Amino acid sequence: MNKKITIAIDAMGGDNSPEKTIEGVGIFIKNNKNNKDFKINLFGNIDEINKSINKFGIDKKNIEIKHTISVISDDETPLTAIKNSKNTSMWNCIKSQIDGESDISLSAGNTGVLLVISRMILKMINGVTKPALAALWPNQKGMSVVLDLGANIECDESNLIDFSELGSALYKSLFPKEKPKVSLLNVGSEEIKGTEILKKTFPKLKELSNENNFIFNGYIEGNELMNGESNVIVTDGFTGNIALKTAEGTAKFITDNLKKSLTKNLFSKISLIFSYFSLKQFKSKLDPRKYNGAIFLGLNGPVVKSHGGTDALGFYYSIDLCYKIIKGRLMDQIKENLNHLDGSKKSK
Amino acid sequence: MNKKITIAIDAMGGDNSPEKTIEGVGIFIKNNKNNKDFKINLFGNIDEINKSINKFGIDKKNIEIKHTISVISDDETPLTAIKNSKNTSMWNCIKSQIDGESDISLSAGNTGVLLVISRMILKMINGVTKPALAALWPNQKGMSVVLDLGANIECDESNLIDFSELGSALYKSLFPKEKPKVSLLNVGSEEIKGTEILKKTFPKLKELSNENNFIFNGYIEGNELMNGESNVIVTDGFTGNIALKTAEGTAKFITDNLKKSLTKNLFSKISLIFSYFSLKQFKSKLDPRKYNGAIFLGLNGPVVKSHGGTDALGFYYSIDLCYKIIKGRLMDQIKENLNHLDGSKKSK
Repeated sequence: MNKKITIAIDAMGGDNSPEKTIEGVGIFIKNNKNNKDFKINLFGNIDEINKSINKFGIDKKNIEIKHTISVISDDETPLTAIKNSKNTSMWNCIKSQIDGESDISLSAGNTGVLLVISRMILKMINGVTKPALAALWPNQKGMSVVLDLGANIECDESNLIDFSELGSALYKSLFPKEKPKVSLLNVGSEEIKGTEILKKTFPKLKELSNENNFIFNGYIEGNELMNGESNVIVTDGFTGNIALKTAEGTAKFITDNLKKSLTKNLFSKISLIFSYFSLKQFKSKLDPRKYNGAIFLGLNGPVVKSHGGTDALGFYYSIDLCYKIIKGRLMDQIKENLNHLDGSKKSK
Repeated sequence: MNKKITIAIDAMGGDNSPEKTIEGVGIFIKNNKNNKDFKINLFGNIDEINKSINKFGIDKKNIEIKHTISVISDDETPLTAIKNSKNTSMWNCIKSQIDGESDISLSAGNTGVLLVISRMILKMINGVTKPALAALWPNQKGMSVVLDLGANIECDESNLIDFSELGSALYKSLFPKEKPKVSLLNVGSEEIKGTEILKKTFPKLKELSNENNFIFNGYIEGNELMNGESNVIVTDGFTGNIALKTAEGTAKFITDNLKKSLTKNLFSKISLIFSYFSLKQFKSKLDPRKYNGAIFLGLNGPVVKSHGGTDALGFYYSIDLCYKIIKGRLMDQIKENLNHLDGSKKSK
């Protein structure tokens, strides 16, 4: 690859920014110090950014700062924010993609505003009607892509088919050697189960299933989300959001109870000394920071949303995700997947 | 209470039955040996049942065996099963409720057939159009009732309102001293969030919210299912099923990983000696057998479905659930809750 991978970062979005975002950039640069194929465009207040860069002693060689004067607040609604967004770090960050300055955008700012602004600036891919929010989920064998996680409350069969194509393109960009297995999330595995929309989607995905694109794996139930048998799990934004949040809540419930049990008495506290490294590894595997970064798919350019409350390490993982997606040629993969669809629908 | 609580049990349904179901009955009788307010009607093959009763040395004082000649298999579809169901243990078990012989039915057999037969025999409560499947979920403060978990793929606002009334009646029957807090499962907590059906349900539940019936708590997200702030969580059967299965899958994923970590090396194995009792307590709290038993609500009599694959202890917990529900006057609580609704809808 001759051209550098250029990541546009909204340095001002999220809690404790730009300190947190810049510290995350620092971790990324340190971890990629022998790597010459990337560049980072930082959008935000130049003085504050430089202060953090100096604080963390970050090598500025691959960084360019693009000064912006305002920031979108977390309380703002998309409607009011759009009116006043033109000078913000978020707007300019995404705009740099259509100006050809960046390949991908990353922000930890206001989700609603980010989705609306991204769509306004980048526009939908021709033939795709709804964008989806995708994320990586840990599973028994590694990780899978799950979408939509909340961008669209209601979806029809054509949206679910688009999500299958977009999600498998994302999976291929991250794991280039694998043929993604796509499953539809449902309440049973038989073809007759589920909503009318799922029943209409099933035969169409079966028809589209092929070695180049994705292998359609049928329906799965919620308990199969993490068994590692599916690489891409497709659902509407309402169901996906409920599943994601329920998994988060369950994980918290279990680990809170485990923690309580293991610090309950002297014996269990002693046990912690012996299990320290094993439990650390266990905790590390489940660390939500490792899966930080939801990818907004279906636009003419990828946008990644970092959790607003994550720390520098979590933000680093979302920068790393941006880097990998572009290195894996996400937009080309999407183009290839969508070209494969019915020409009448996908052609201009 | 003068009349005995009479529990009708389909002794033949589920894996390893009747041995498993009868062993479960044995545990129940042993745990309630000083208790004279119950009777158990066992439906199934009298010889097989007696064999298991003798095997486990169960006191037969409060047991009556009702001999039936056939069993509904797990592979049968509701349609074929209904034709041949008249002589089965399941059919006769539920029928004993309209014959006035039993207060509640329990089966670990084929779910689809159980739901259809229950509805055929018991009929819907006047004014309720769809029955719901409810279950108990563990949470940080105890347990909550969640419904619908899969009986109805699509629900409208009047169904969700009925589920709120039915679910809070169930909660009151189990925890008579508490005023149930009812929440709607959604993808955000603001009133404007979610599907059109949820937006229509919200103001109606707000209107119905009162001290006698239930307190409407607004919307909650999936991550709040287990925080203990809601006693009754209402959703449609598709979403509820996805949430339930996702929670199961997540719990399995985490505990599998924990087990792997804690048996990985010598040090972590030593730690297990010290943490044995604490971890046992932790495991016990999360034991799915404790929450075994989904309650089918909205019919003129309660029916409980035990997990088919559970063991004798799991089956015992579902018998105990039946006993508690009837002791807590579930059907009266439902009547009171539904009377409270708009007369034009609920009157005959």
